[in-house]
Amino acid sequence: MSALSSQAYKGTRDYYPEDKRVQNYIFAVWRSIAEQYGYEEYGAPTLEPLDIYAAKSGQELANEQTYSFTDRGGRVVAIRPEMTPSVSRMVAARRQELPYPARLYSIANFMRYERPQRGREREFWQLNVDIFGVDDIAAEAEIITMSDAVLKAFGAKDDDFVIKINNRKLINFMMAQYLGLDAVGAQLMVKLFDRKDKISPVDFHDQAREILADDAEEGLQKVDLLLDAKSMADLPAEIRNSSSVVEVQELFTLLERAGVKSAVFDITLMRGLDYYTGTVFEVYDTRPENTRALFGGGRYDGLVGLFGAEPISAVGVAPGGTAIENFLEVHKLVPELVSKTDIYIVVLGDAKRSASKLARDLRDQGVNVELDITDRKLDKQIKTATKKKIPYMLFIGDDEVKTEVYTIKDAFTTTEQKLNFASIVSLIKSKRR
Amino acid sequence: MSALSSQAYKGTRDYYPEDKRVQNYIFAVWRSIAEQYGYEEYGAPTLEPLDIYAAKSGQELANEQTYSFTDRGGRVVAIRPEMTPSVSRMVAARRQELPYPARLYSIANFMRYERPQRGREREFWQLNVDIFGVDDIAAEAEIITMSDAVLKAFGAKDDDFVIKINNRKLINFMMAQYLGLDAVGAQLMVKLFDRKDKISPVDFHDQAREILADDAEEGLQKVDLLLDAKSMADLPAEIRNSSSVVEVQELFTLLERAGVKSAVFDITLMRGLDYYTGTVFEVYDTRPENTRALFGGGRYDGLVGLFGAEPISAVGVAPGGTAIENFLEVHKLVPELVSKTDIYIVVLGDAKRSASKLARDLRDQGVNVELDITDRKLDKQIKTATKKKIPYMLFIGDDEVKTEVYTIKDAFTTTEQKLNFASIVSLIKSKRR
Repeated sequence: MSALSSQAYKGTRDYYPEDKRVQNYIFAVWRSIAEQYGYEEYGAPTLEPLDIYAAKSGQELANEQTYSFTDRGGRVVAIRPEMTPSVSRMVAARRQELPYPARLYSIANFMRYERPQRGREREFWQLNVDIFGVDDIAAEAEIITMSDAVLKAFGAKDDDFVIKINNRKLINFMMAQYLGLDAVGAQLMVKLFDRKDKISPVDFHDQAREILADDAEEGLQKVDLLLDAKSMADLPAEIRNSSSVVEVQELFTLLERAGVKSAVFDITLMRGLDYYTGTVFEVYDTRPENTRALFGGGRYDGLVGLFGAEPISAVGVAPGGTAIENFLEVHKLVPELVSKTDIYIVVLGDAKRSASKLARDLRDQGVNVELDITDRKLDKQIKTATKKKIPYMLFIGDDEVKTEVYTIKDAFTTTEQKLNFASIVSLIKSKRR
Repeated sequence: MSALSSQAYKGTRDYYPEDKRVQNYIFAVWRSIAEQYGYEEYGAPTLEPLDIYAAKSGQELANEQTYSFTDRGGRVVAIRPEMTPSVSRMVAARRQELPYPARLYSIANFMRYERPQRGREREFWQLNVDIFGVDDIAAEAEIITMSDAVLKAFGAKDDDFVIKINNRKLINFMMAQYLGLDAVGAQLMVKLFDRKDKISPVDFHDQAREILADDAEEGLQKVDLLLDAKSMADLPAEIRNSSSVVEVQELFTLLERAGVKSAVFDITLMRGLDYYTGTVFEVYDTRPENTRALFGGGRYDGLVGLFGAEPISAVGVAPGGTAIENFLEVHKLVPELVSKTDIYIVVLGDAKRSASKLARDLRDQGVNVELDITDRKLDKQIKTATKKKIPYMLFIGDDEVKTEVYTIKDAFTTTEQKLNFASIVSLIKSKRR
């Protein structure tokens, strides 16, 4: 038999301890912000019936990007490509019992069959934060404030990112009333706006002209006006006076009060998924290395109702691990991360049995101890400890067994000191926050 | 369109906040023990090529229980049904660079297409703990000691569980030399022993007779001798004197020194997976409610070598979340778990804006605060806070805005006190460990 490949499946990643430390750091920051705002963690299955995505996630995601298959019992299922349908299903299943507003978060993995590229992997991790049961712009304000807080908690500054905000109701008004498009034309134009940063201005105009058909020239002028608008004041009066603008303005007032400085209105922001019904937003890195949206979210009031329950309003956001990691790298915000192991015990001579007992006693005191059980030479044991980036080495040989005083070496400063058991425990505890 | 089902996919579970708290408690205990012993966390992809299971996991697992399918690029893949092949693949991919002994752990989800029943779900979570590069029984001693430590950390006592230990080399000797079976017969007998607790003694004997064929009666007597052996001393001299017994005895010496009191030798323990090469063990609940093994592990020295790398010795164990949860329930070891949210702010009158600022200031001090943003009546807000099991409610109305002294109510004792900002922060910090 020929050897099996040792490579990870295409578009997925193996997280070795040094990679996992970074991921765990990202998860810990996500978790701290979600919990600071009173969100509670939930979990959902990896597999879902495919039709929950077909319903509202959009054709591209459901038909082209899912890992879907028929299980051994004939059910057509998909590895979840996103969390929103799952959490909506869960809320629908306990529509009556849950306390509202329900504030829920999860940290989970997802799969999409896309071409792997920078910031995009076939398997990826996301924080999903959702609030159910608040039919008021205060919900959007909270979710967007949290999005801002997450990036700040990683050490980002206000000008490192921008939060672009729009509203589906405003988009609908713009497409139907302002541009005079029918339902099909409106949908095509939304998709075109959604792709506008990925195609050339010439292509954009050509495709817009095709959608506008009869009134192409007047329509194109109107489209250009929208594209050029830098703020709400630049918009044509017709849009500025539409009723949905009120809730957009209220949102900006709440965000300002909450100290969010990176939010801007952007009439051209569409956000791909079909289930959004009100506010939509996307967060962008201001540095040119990351051109795609870091993450986004919005209001999706109709989704819970698809599962046979009375509809309930919902707003959510979902930052992804890979995009955040790229953001941190570009902005040099990845902290120095060391092993969670405190001490590596290097064993000399016949001290094996005593070393084992020492390790046990230290662990009982809450110290994380790796014990060398290999009977190797001193230099090999030291090499292992160094390679693992463990902060301290403890040396134990016949002398130390007698005196119960051990040599402790700081792996980074290389300074050594001789300490007894109690002092070792104190040293380690003092080094932790 | 008819409504979508709100049920989770068959054999999988939705973890609502109260379920997720229990799971997180289990994960936290797992993590603390793994890290106390100096193991570092890694992560692996959800999907793997199917053939990594076909190689060594055993036919039943690979052919009948995997969630396998062909991806959009024509690759035959499976949702991982276990972690051992993945972590072995990862070690093989960095065979030269990794520091040894490599001590690795992960907490991850897996899927197997099995009939769902008590303690067994189609999607389940496992702690996987593996040590690579120690060709000595000290590795088994460490892994089994950790298995014991995990159950103790949950509050289990020595007589709540038993760790049954056997050795594949001894099993091979028993099948080939003692029972005189050829390779095919030996494999059938191993599978039969593996099923012995699931079938009746009569069925066991009938099937054993069939495998033994010619020498059935003499063979059956020998088999009965093995089944009746309560300790190593009861075994026939032929087995007791075989060379593999030495390492079994050494293992028991090391376990005794490490304070493991629940370990017993069991010549009838087989452990299903094909990749084990030496020590095998399984942990059983001593209470009759849980008859299946809680979890198990063993030595699998050949697996890394399948991935084109030089072989490296390995020992691992993998406790599962569902089995542990059942164990904790039966032994009444699930602790009282409350929300991670510290305070629910109940907002009265026109205090909305001040309440929002107060929430922000408390969060800046590390307090987890859920703010009511619903403009609902007092009783409805209190009901939500109570249902969520949040330890404290804070009431803010016009008076509190003026005085900056707030009413804090302990949700469990229902005692109230009036506190200023600093005192609230102190109160919350003092309640946390």
